Amino acid sequence: MKTAPAREPVDASALRELRAIVGADHVRHADGDVTAYARDATPLFHARPDAVVHPASTEEVAAVLRLAGARSIPVVPRGAGSNLCSGTVPLAGGIVLVLTRLDRILEVSGDELLAVCQPGVTCAALADAAAARGLLYAPDPGSRSVATIGGTVATCAGGLRGLKYGVTRNYVLGTETVLATGEVIRTGGRLWKDVAGYDLTRLLTGSEGTLGVITEVTLALLPAPAAGGNGLAYFPGLADAGRAVAAIIAAGIVPATLEFLDAKCVEAVERFAGLGLRRDAGALLIFGDDGEPAAVARQLDRMAELCLAAGAIEATVAGRAAESEALLAARRCTLPALSRLGSITILEDAGVPRPQIPAMVGHIDAIAERYDLTIATFGHAGDGNLHPTCVVDAGDDEAVERAHLAFAEIFRTAMRLGGTITGEHGVGAAKLPYLAERLGTAQVDLLRRIKAAFDPAGVLNPGKVGS
Amino acid sequence: MKTAPAREPVDASALRELRAIVGADHVRHADGDVTAYARDATPLFHARPDAVVHPASTEEVAAVLRLAGARSIPVVPRGAGSNLCSGTVPLAGGIVLVLTRLDRILEVSGDELLAVCQPGVTCAALADAAAARGLLYAPDPGSRSVATIGGTVATCAGGLRGLKYGVTRNYVLGTETVLATGEVIRTGGRLWKDVAGYDLTRLLTGSEGTLGVITEVTLALLPAPAAGGNGLAYFPGLADAGRAVAAIIAAGIVPATLEFLDAKCVEAVERFAGLGLRRDAGALLIFGDDGEPAAVARQLDRMAELCLAAGAIEATVAGRAAESEALLAARRCTLPALSRLGSITILEDAGVPRPQIPAMVGHIDAIAERYDLTIATFGHAGDGNLHPTCVVDAGDDEAVERAHLAFAEIFRTAMRLGGTITGEHGVGAAKLPYLAERLGTAQVDLLRRIKAAFDPAGVLNPGKVGS
Repeated sequence: MKTAPAREPVDASALRELRAIVGADHVRHADGDVTAYARDATPLFHARPDAVVHPASTEEVAAVLRLAGARSIPVVPRGAGSNLCSGTVPLAGGIVLVLTRLDRILEVSGDELLAVCQPGVTCAALADAAAARGLLYAPDPGSRSVATIGGTVATCAGGLRGLKYGVTRNYVLGTETVLATGEVIRTGGRLWKDVAGYDLTRLLTGSEGTLGVITEVTLALLPAPAAGGNGLAYFPGLADAGRAVAAIIAAGIVPATLEFLDAKCVEAVERFAGLGLRRDAGALLIFGDDGEPAAVARQLDRMAELCLAAGAIEATVAGRAAESEALLAARRCTLPALSRLGSITILEDAGVPRPQIPAMVGHIDAIAERYDLTIATFGHAGDGNLHPTCVVDAGDDEAVERAHLAFAEIFRTAMRLGGTITGEHGVGAAKLPYLAERLGTAQVDLLRRIKAAFDPAGVLNPGKVGS
Repeated sequence: MKTAPAREPVDASALRELRAIVGADHVRHADGDVTAYARDATPLFHARPDAVVHPASTEEVAAVLRLAGARSIPVVPRGAGSNLCSGTVPLAGGIVLVLTRLDRILEVSGDELLAVCQPGVTCAALADAAAARGLLYAPDPGSRSVATIGGTVATCAGGLRGLKYGVTRNYVLGTETVLATGEVIRTGGRLWKDVAGYDLTRLLTGSEGTLGVITEVTLALLPAPAAGGNGLAYFPGLADAGRAVAAIIAAGIVPATLEFLDAKCVEAVERFAGLGLRRDAGALLIFGDDGEPAAVARQLDRMAELCLAAGAIEATVAGRAAESEALLAARRCTLPALSRLGSITILEDAGVPRPQIPAMVGHIDAIAERYDLTIATFGHAGDGNLHPTCVVDAGDDEAVERAHLAFAEIFRTAMRLGGTITGEHGVGAAKLPYLAERLGTAQVDLLRRIKAAFDPAGVLNPGKVGS
């Protein structure tokens, strides 16, 4: 069973109906208004939507979906558009349904350790609201300042704290979701333990807008740790950094942060931000932890020692909070730093088992050399999620083509090492060509049957996972 | 769409084929051999299977499912049969597929913090294998000494550490699963971060044998905490204990253990085990934590102080490991202690938001009185998962009927308070009558379509969730 996806355009009568649902101000179809929604943060993918619709309520979302279903118009839900796998590019045209007007935080409860919010709230805003109550919203994707809760739930976003804190799915307790038919369901609820029915909450998390439109989310919070800190170690090469990571894990430490940058990333960051990083090392490891102040200080010192024992050239623990934040800023600015090296930055997202990271980066470097490309790699050493990043020039079609071939080899290498084609960005259209290789055809067929069970008319985000 | 469930009996030719697949010794159909598989640990539900089949490999499971699909024979996967919602009772007859011969632990990796095992391994055996490597398998359902990994994954089992450590779903990284068609898929893998495709790993977790037969599981482990300890506090009533729980959470403590027993449970445990518990209190709270020794000692002292400040009659921290274990033993023997009070013990599994626990137990007591029943309540104060337990005599049909009516009211009350009909036991046939009330008919219809997407012939566990 494969859904025949919706493909009808938004005609004048559909526009009239859409205006009646959300108000004329919130339906746009002029070129100048919709071209910004032809792309998300994924390079090379774009497709013009017929209309961009900004609903303000669950009821409006449901009415738009009923209309779209009746007229076989594709609907692509979208938050901030910071997606990195073309998940929100409207490949089949139709409606881009922008959920940023649904931007209210409905509840932050210290008693119940949870928050309830609408999908258009940014991760940072939710984290700030939690922090104001002494609470932590743990998921912290790189795009947290702009990315919306709805988008990060739809992609099951990861971040810098994956090993210790898990990913978005670990924090989604419940959703309100509008099905493609316009029916509104509530999945899960406010409880940590609830096994009434199949786990639709987790199935929707990471479904990339193909199974339903999430209009409300209940998220688990944690008490904010009393203290946190970071340190940094330089190594001759990634193999040495890999030994340090193994030693940290073997010592029973599950650090909040364990990020690495290869030499190319360090060089780019230093040129971009002038943070005073050493340029003579082969790899940089940023380690950090949070918790009780004394325990954090002890863990940081211990991690620095383990790095030195594994062959670090230098290992230091940030003395004050500002220094500690500066270290994470170095990691967070890796992407903007790399993107200055060319006009197109292809940020990828493979994953391998933690012990395979040095081997994987070695393979990436060899592949880059073979295809005559600049590919720098940074990522999450704690959970094996790597971001090989290729920088090319927009005019150089031949280099873009080589980049595609190189990434195909990178994904295959990751799978061969027991890993995956996407750790935290999603499938979108960008990874769809590799999905059958990752999951097998029997499983991909099953995904299509699940998609059809949710969205028999193929209205939601056609051309993506489940298609 | 609703699956027309398989209903054909296992006839002589099917028996011949089954023997050819798994060997004659591993197919049983005589009364004496199959009656034990007519029930699980749920009282009042039973149905005789036509045959009991014990496969030894994934290939044998797949062959049995192909045969069953071709002949429209129901198949009910089963581990230890410790299920408490009749999830493994073969309501439509057919084959009970017992997975206990698939009992190998295939890998325990300290480097990758994971284990790979077959479904027939018990929770306790896996936890022991992990502990031998200095690692922790966190889920610890009450039945852990007999319950199998396959069964606890299929039910998304909880346990005593839910608030701090989450439930089974938080630890399942990947599965090998045989679909109803006999196709074998591998979901997820070895990574914490992997978003390639819909989250079938979590969808299968908690699917109660209705979507596939899990034949291998990859589970996340944690470094074993260096120390752990427990304490105990007696309160005049549950409202006081509830205030203590709120104060503990407000203090930023997320304890590993936070279990309560009402006065009826304390009385039963004391009569059963003679542990020296006080019988003059209205509620008992067992609190515990694990981690670095100094931090654990500090948290335990703090929790004892918070209990006293909230009105505890007495609060003590166990001095030594043996005493600490004895406290948990008191909690773990609550069910056997209660079950001595009558010949049928109906152990239920409602959930409410944590702040609603005292109100919920008040409602349970009022309902028990109204229906002239003995219902004692214990449970997980940290995550709001309550086990109201009704003890009746097998011969007293009228009391059994009153118990059903009382539990229906209890479930409705839990839902009214923002809770659920099952926190950790599952839906099975026991909770199926309440599922539409919990989820709404649109969602129940969607569960049926998902079931049909996995199992179009309705072979797997008919009459349960998704039916």
